Amino acid sequence: MKNAPQDYRSLLDALARCVAACEYCADACLHEDNVQMMVPCIRLDRDCADICRLTAAFIARGSDHAKHIIKECIEICQKCADECGKHQHDHCQQCAQACRECLDACRAYNG
Amino acid sequence: MKNAPQDYRSLLDALARCVAACEYCADACLHEDNVQMMVPCIRLDRDCADICRLTAAFIARGSDHAKHIIKECIEICQKCADECGKHQHDHCQQCAQACRECLDACRAYNG
Amino acid sequence: MKNAPQDYRSLLDALARCVAACEYCADACLHEDNVQMMVPCIRLDRDCADICRLTAAFIARGSDHAKHIIKECIEICQKCADECGKHQHDHCQQCAQACRECLDACRAYNG
Amino acid sequence: MKNAPQDYRSLLDALARCVAACEYCADACLHEDNVQMMVPCIRLDRDCADICRLTAAFIARGSDHAKHIIKECIEICQKCADECGKHQHDHCQQCAQACRECLDACRAYNG
Repeated sequence: MKNAPQDYRSLLDALARCVAACEYCADACLHEDNVQMMVPCIRLDRDCADICRLTAAFIARGSDHAKHIIKECIEICQKCADECGKHQHDHCQQCAQACRECLDACRAYNG
Repeated sequence: MKNAPQDYRSLLDALARCVAACEYCADACLHEDNVQMMVPCIRLDRDCADICRLTAAFIARGSDHAKHIIKECIEICQKCADECGKHQHDHCQQCAQACRECLDACRAYNG
Repeated sequence: MKNAPQDYRSLLDALARCVAACEYCADACLHEDNVQMMVPCIRLDRDCADICRLTAAFIARGSDHAKHIIKECIEICQKCADECGKHQHDHCQQCAQACRECLDACRAYNG
Repeated sequence: MKNAPQDYRSLLDALARCVAACEYCADACLHEDNVQMMVPCIRLDRDCADICRLTAAFIARGSDHAKHIIKECIEICQKCADECGKHQHDHCQQCAQACRECLDACRAYNG
């Protein structure tokens, strides 16, 4: 029998918090004065939220494809953390942090 | 300025845990001996996971439509909690509990 | 027995084309010179893509909740069509058109 | 400038039809007498619907990550086509066909 969600609680929480941070950051970037400079951040936020949502679903239901998807999740989280980390807005710094925590949790899962 | 994810931390966590519990329960039901009896549970689990994911996205990004969507979320969580609550499998009982906690968090948000 | 996807082919196609038009428009708006003026359009595009994706899933699998969700879908499509329709960019005009076609297909479904 | 949805119309349509066929097949399998035998089909249908939805979003918005995600999409579509193809139910045969058409469209895109 595959593991229950509570066995992956820290990973699933990290993915969900990354989704929320990315959704929020993408929207908050739209309201910044320098929105044109934030475009790469907005685009990565969107991809990152989507791949984290998919990864969480696959892990929660014990999909055979979780191991593959999580690799792409790690890659997109890394890019999003790097891009958000360049900007001083609170939402960007918080998003970069959420991406890094998600990344670490994904790596721990994939051994 | 709309609120940051940490201001909705308990609601977003409740939604994410409901998603995970529903994804897990839907899959675990497929492996039960009485799978035919679990069909309504599986179908509600799937709808509930989907609406909770959408609701979490709308809330995290401060969508104007969050207030409407959360009403449908409450309704589906209620139905899913009622159906899962009928079954004694651990995954069903845990899912019913996650749905109820999500429901309460959604109601608190909507005032 | 519920209907097969081919029975809803025109509705499902309209929903999928609305998703694609909204995803494209949201991204294309980010690259316009007047991006600040496009913010309401980007935000509606995102909500519209998400609700159309959910609606398509519920209809394809014959969910009991399709009838409710499609009402919210109609409302968001209408708002997105109105907002996109204000802008002369090709992607906005095409998105407004896709939203209106989706809206009509949803209304036909809901009787 | 990236391409508009109409430039990928056949790929986006193939992805959307695969999503619909998988959603429908997963649900229809639950109502078959031999539901226990259909479990691998249901599980693959769900993963396939999810990855096709994500792939369609990434392609429609011109994401830099579309090329990677589409590889995983091809792999899951292939597995789903193989599994559905084993079963004689109409919904399984139609889903296998939709997966194969999606697969071909994805391969054509990725060159």
